[in-house]
Amino acid sequence: MQAPQLSAIDVDPPRVSTDMPPEDVRRFGRDVVDRIAAYLERTEDWRVLPAVEPGGLRAALPASAPEEGEPFEAILADFDRLIMPATTHWNHPGFFAWFSITGSGPGILGEALAAALNVNAMLWRSGPAATELEEVTLDWLRQMLGLPAGLDGTINDTASSSTLYALAAAREALDLGIREHGMAGRADLPPLAVYCSAEAHSSVDKAALTLGLGTSGIRRIATDADLRMDPAALVSAIHEDLARGVRPMAVVATTGTTSTTAVDPVPQIADICEAEDIWLHVDAAYGGAAAVVPELRWVLDGCERADSLVVNPHKWLFVPVDCSVLYTRRPEMLRGAFSLVPEYLRTREDTRNLMDYGVALGRRFRALKLWFVLRYFGTAGIADRLRGHVALARLFATRVDRHPAFERVAPTLLSVVAFRWAPPHTTPEDQDRLNEALLDHVNASGEVFLSHTRVGGRYALRLAIGNLKTTERHVLRAWALLEEGAAALAPAG
Amino acid sequence: MQAPQLSAIDVDPPRVSTDMPPEDVRRFGRDVVDRIAAYLERTEDWRVLPAVEPGGLRAALPASAPEEGEPFEAILADFDRLIMPATTHWNHPGFFAWFSITGSGPGILGEALAAALNVNAMLWRSGPAATELEEVTLDWLRQMLGLPAGLDGTINDTASSSTLYALAAAREALDLGIREHGMAGRADLPPLAVYCSAEAHSSVDKAALTLGLGTSGIRRIATDADLRMDPAALVSAIHEDLARGVRPMAVVATTGTTSTTAVDPVPQIADICEAEDIWLHVDAAYGGAAAVVPELRWVLDGCERADSLVVNPHKWLFVPVDCSVLYTRRPEMLRGAFSLVPEYLRTREDTRNLMDYGVALGRRFRALKLWFVLRYFGTAGIADRLRGHVALARLFATRVDRHPAFERVAPTLLSVVAFRWAPPHTTPEDQDRLNEALLDHVNASGEVFLSHTRVGGRYALRLAIGNLKTTERHVLRAWALLEEGAAALAPAG
Repeated sequence: MQAPQLSAIDVDPPRVSTDMPPEDVRRFGRDVVDRIAAYLERTEDWRVLPAVEPGGLRAALPASAPEEGEPFEAILADFDRLIMPATTHWNHPGFFAWFSITGSGPGILGEALAAALNVNAMLWRSGPAATELEEVTLDWLRQMLGLPAGLDGTINDTASSSTLYALAAAREALDLGIREHGMAGRADLPPLAVYCSAEAHSSVDKAALTLGLGTSGIRRIATDADLRMDPAALVSAIHEDLARGVRPMAVVATTGTTSTTAVDPVPQIADICEAEDIWLHVDAAYGGAAAVVPELRWVLDGCERADSLVVNPHKWLFVPVDCSVLYTRRPEMLRGAFSLVPEYLRTREDTRNLMDYGVALGRRFRALKLWFVLRYFGTAGIADRLRGHVALARLFATRVDRHPAFERVAPTLLSVVAFRWAPPHTTPEDQDRLNEALLDHVNASGEVFLSHTRVGGRYALRLAIGNLKTTERHVLRAWALLEEGAAALAPAG
Repeated sequence: MQAPQLSAIDVDPPRVSTDMPPEDVRRFGRDVVDRIAAYLERTEDWRVLPAVEPGGLRAALPASAPEEGEPFEAILADFDRLIMPATTHWNHPGFFAWFSITGSGPGILGEALAAALNVNAMLWRSGPAATELEEVTLDWLRQMLGLPAGLDGTINDTASSSTLYALAAAREALDLGIREHGMAGRADLPPLAVYCSAEAHSSVDKAALTLGLGTSGIRRIATDADLRMDPAALVSAIHEDLARGVRPMAVVATTGTTSTTAVDPVPQIADICEAEDIWLHVDAAYGGAAAVVPELRWVLDGCERADSLVVNPHKWLFVPVDCSVLYTRRPEMLRGAFSLVPEYLRTREDTRNLMDYGVALGRRFRALKLWFVLRYFGTAGIADRLRGHVALARLFATRVDRHPAFERVAPTLLSVVAFRWAPPHTTPEDQDRLNEALLDHVNASGEVFLSHTRVGGRYALRLAIGNLKTTERHVLRAWALLEEGAAALAPAG
């Protein structure tokens, strides 16, 4: 088929009404707000994990989009009927899996306004308020975290993207001409390596794969008994690589690992990175938030010396997904890795343009919800809530510690408890099976949802606290379900 | 500072109320809905481009976050006072810059509900409804675009990310062991190259840089008089590379270039890719939407043969940013590039997990707004609206064509008109300056916002139509402003 001539489509004004009429936006908007308020008030009426099988929703939906538009009432009714019961309720106060993230009222309302403005803040000119509010709120957050001035911050969707961008900047900082000449087919280029602990998040691997380092370019450094990166092992790995011509590209330290919230010894790691001139990136996606609490500020000790650091307000700072913040002391390297300005994006203003700091060109107005949240709760209000979450984790930890057949498998530093049921006279292999069965048992209740990990090769359970609505009652209920489950599943004898 | 012992933080329940009370979510939610409805009804009360200088908003905001929380009324008042007047109004029917994107009432309400659910659909288990609704809506959209069955779709934030992921899959498909061994320091690896037209989007370059191909691995293929990739030049470039040992990795064709909406000859390019066994990725981020209109379906001719294709519902399908869809016939390559399943993310279900198809682990429930939009407008309703936008572009094109001192500089295939003021007795250099001045002149009105490009090296203006609220009146007003501006700025003589 060929492109039609200009005359082939009549030059008529649009024949149909355009958007939803404003009076319907108002009317259905109120319906939506009522749903949201009722849902937040009564999230506990839902099972945390829905009782659905894979494919169930798909089978309940038509195979094709409707030809003619449908009334919005019908769409909302289907949302109630089909979507809500097939949703894992991250808002449920009994959601203790992975990292328990939390949105909030002000965050939701900020997101709604951002969706209405529909700004793409790729350039200052395309979103002056979005660009500047991102600068301002990230400077507020920097201060709240006790990080030094001079850090440049940008908001990305997820920590995986932030870490990818940080490591791309680290690659650029090698000054090996990779931006110009690439990596493939170059006899002059050494192999490159990234270092992180055995407990680091899989996003480090994903970033290394994407950047062309390969799995063979990833060094998983051994950890100590508390699952923290061993600085001596890091030094050895670096020196071994240097001896065989491998160029260290970056070290990724983690403050708050996904498995057990272990905090790598960043001050010692920073010493090593400075001595060896290696980019230091810190994954504080979850744990960084704790630095808002004065007595937990140690969690970011040494991070002022990092070249880059990621912290996710959508994890433990009450901002709905997605909102991941990448700070760097060396924004010129981020720009060096990514900045490209084609003619159609040139503007007259000599401004900082957010598109120059990552892969994504389009950028939602994510700073709006962050601004709403930081102002509504205030620094002290956020610290109080985080302190409460840590206290709840410790409450649960004391229950584990007091029980003869349960044990914690890692220190409880922040709001996650890693533990295991270890009934007497069972082998480690038995215990793996028993813990898996126990996890299924308590999750089947619909009242709580915990997840698992492996520590030292052995199956372990995780109780992660992070939701604004979680209270002592929910934590103690989780413990009661675990005790009941253990009693029901206990091996005979 | 050391991590405190377990006893150092009191085991108390949280001392403060937790989230915004539900009654306040309801009350302020209604305030927010009223604001949104009023804004959508009266967007024209705002200047499209705000009359602000860089730094203005920053200077108006406090240097630090408040210590104590603030009343939500005060936050909303500041939103009205500070954010709205410093916003570039992408919703304004006179927004004709870049690609004029459009949200919609149902899209906004869908985004608000998604923010409330706050689901992270990394795994089926973490978001059954989000995972399956993404599959269903993307299959609906595939059918609407006339694409064949068997395409696997995922939603990403932006086309830049989608194209990065697609090219990572293309790199994986080379079967050169890059996932395992990386690219640096490998004598066995040839240089790699990506091919796209001289008019392709800068996201192709960003992806190539990120993946380690370098600027030297990007081949910008010459275009014909209509700014479409020249297949003969593509073949030559591929053969030249092969002759000197460069391995072609991917060809990126564009259907609807950013500068002028040129449509590359995908059928011929697909022939070449098949003959040479090269991954074909199609950037249909903007133009793909047009395929919903039966008489514009030619825009995706040949795309059924692509290995991957990106189309952005947040551009011209009434979905608020962000929502970019990546389709691929070879999802196993996408998984090969990105899939990594650490213990803490293992689940029992044998399901498709969205985290395996890209860099981002966290995934918002973006399918919800897409579902709302597709159902509310229906296939026919969307086609009618797009047809209307194309008709408006053609209306504007006829005005340009009829004016002796204006000329179009590229065919008007879709909803963008690329044109230039070319007063008699002026040199091309004069014309560049005059067009730049004319652009500033009309944009200063606050009534419209156009952007520019370069075609054949010469400065040109772009009028892009895409907003649901744009009507004949707005297009004719843009033309009147251009005529007035030309009269005011016309060179003497």
